[in-house]
Amino acid sequence: MERKKFVNSLSDTVANQIINYIQENKLVPEDKLPTEYELANMLAVSRSTIREAFKILVSRNILESRQGAGTFISDKRGIPTDPLGLTFIGDSSSLALDLINVRLMFEPEIAALATINATKENLQAIEDACTAAEVAINAESSYYPEDILFHKAIADASGNLVVQNLVPIIHSSIKQSIAATSDALRGQTLLQHRKITNCIKAGDFQGARYAMILHLNANRDIVKDTSKASSST
Amino acid sequence: MERKKFVNSLSDTVANQIINYIQENKLVPEDKLPTEYELANMLAVSRSTIREAFKILVSRNILESRQGAGTFISDKRGIPTDPLGLTFIGDSSSLALDLINVRLMFEPEIAALATINATKENLQAIEDACTAAEVAINAESSYYPEDILFHKAIADASGNLVVQNLVPIIHSSIKQSIAATSDALRGQTLLQHRKITNCIKAGDFQGARYAMILHLNANRDIVKDTSKASSST
Repeated sequence: MERKKFVNSLSDTVANQIINYIQENKLVPEDKLPTEYELANMLAVSRSTIREAFKILVSRNILESRQGAGTFISDKRGIPTDPLGLTFIGDSSSLALDLINVRLMFEPEIAALATINATKENLQAIEDACTAAEVAINAESSYYPEDILFHKAIADASGNLVVQNLVPIIHSSIKQSIAATSDALRGQTLLQHRKITNCIKAGDFQGARYAMILHLNANRDIVKDTSKASSST
Repeated sequence: MERKKFVNSLSDTVANQIINYIQENKLVPEDKLPTEYELANMLAVSRSTIREAFKILVSRNILESRQGAGTFISDKRGIPTDPLGLTFIGDSSSLALDLINVRLMFEPEIAALATINATKENLQAIEDACTAAEVAINAESSYYPEDILFHKAIADASGNLVVQNLVPIIHSSIKQSIAATSDALRGQTLLQHRKITNCIKAGDFQGARYAMILHLNANRDIVKDTSKASSST
């Protein structure tokens, strides 16, 4: 059976033209796009085609619509929903373990790179995120957002553009697959984040690497126990 | 200035209902979805809303439309276009180097894992992909698709579900950012692929890891030379 061709619609083509427009005009997140009417004129298509192209770009997290205000460049910068395609991976307890195993492959290297490449601003951002997580943990409130910010600050400090996008992607996937390893880890996380921060600030390349391994492995132990517990019930 | 809320449209909600339908009915790639008419009745919405939801899911690579034949589950399994959000990363010569640096972080570990977890079928797939790349290289034709298949076969053999999705993502990003390091590498690639394959087949954990480091580092050297050359012109 021969496979039929994809339908590549006019709205897809127009969506790509809008991407080109964004790149050529160096629009950044929060910038406003021309109106439907203006774009329809510029690209010589109907307003309904522009609306369809907008929908495609909103679903790709490149644009966002704000009621009454217009269409803006999304601060998600085109990083899509569920970038790893995990929606259709079945077994979520083994998925959680697979995710932490992947984090163990590259986050220690990222921490090491951060000791070499961090700017003064990067170091401050890591310190601030470490302190913010500490405050949240001590207040016994959720520290999930601060935890993500901490790991993201380290990724930003690595200087590797791919890593800067990859780390939030992995973290958003973790949120999808597993909600609550965090409670058992509160005390450990506090000490381990501080240790990682201090190693990066001191330029201790191997120290930062090993501190990150220790931190993620503690996380991995909990995930392993959780997935054992859930598979035996 | 207070930020306006996202517009969460009816078609987004219906798109999520269709995702639930796919999961509950365990539909797999190539399976056909009910018609617009049937889904409109099931979900009690208009056919135009179903059409909009289809567009969202097509753009997320969850569905694909085939002219005259209907709407099917995409074999891209929801792995989106440009999953790393690299469309908006500016400098493409440093991007190519960042990508190979990321590959060096985890593909050696993946090769090591493959020696432990590969099934008989996995080993055959690695062997076949290795041979196919060899044939293409010896015929002096492009071996890019075979190269991707080789690295994907190793990722599949690792047994890690996240890695299986991550490796094709990284590879598709490489295609976006850099087209032609491959020619300078033909002879080396042939020997290195074979070495990786033999180590995996022999269960040589460390050997597979180091052979993959060697292979990717040869690639990295070329990328470095290329980005130097392009920045000095």
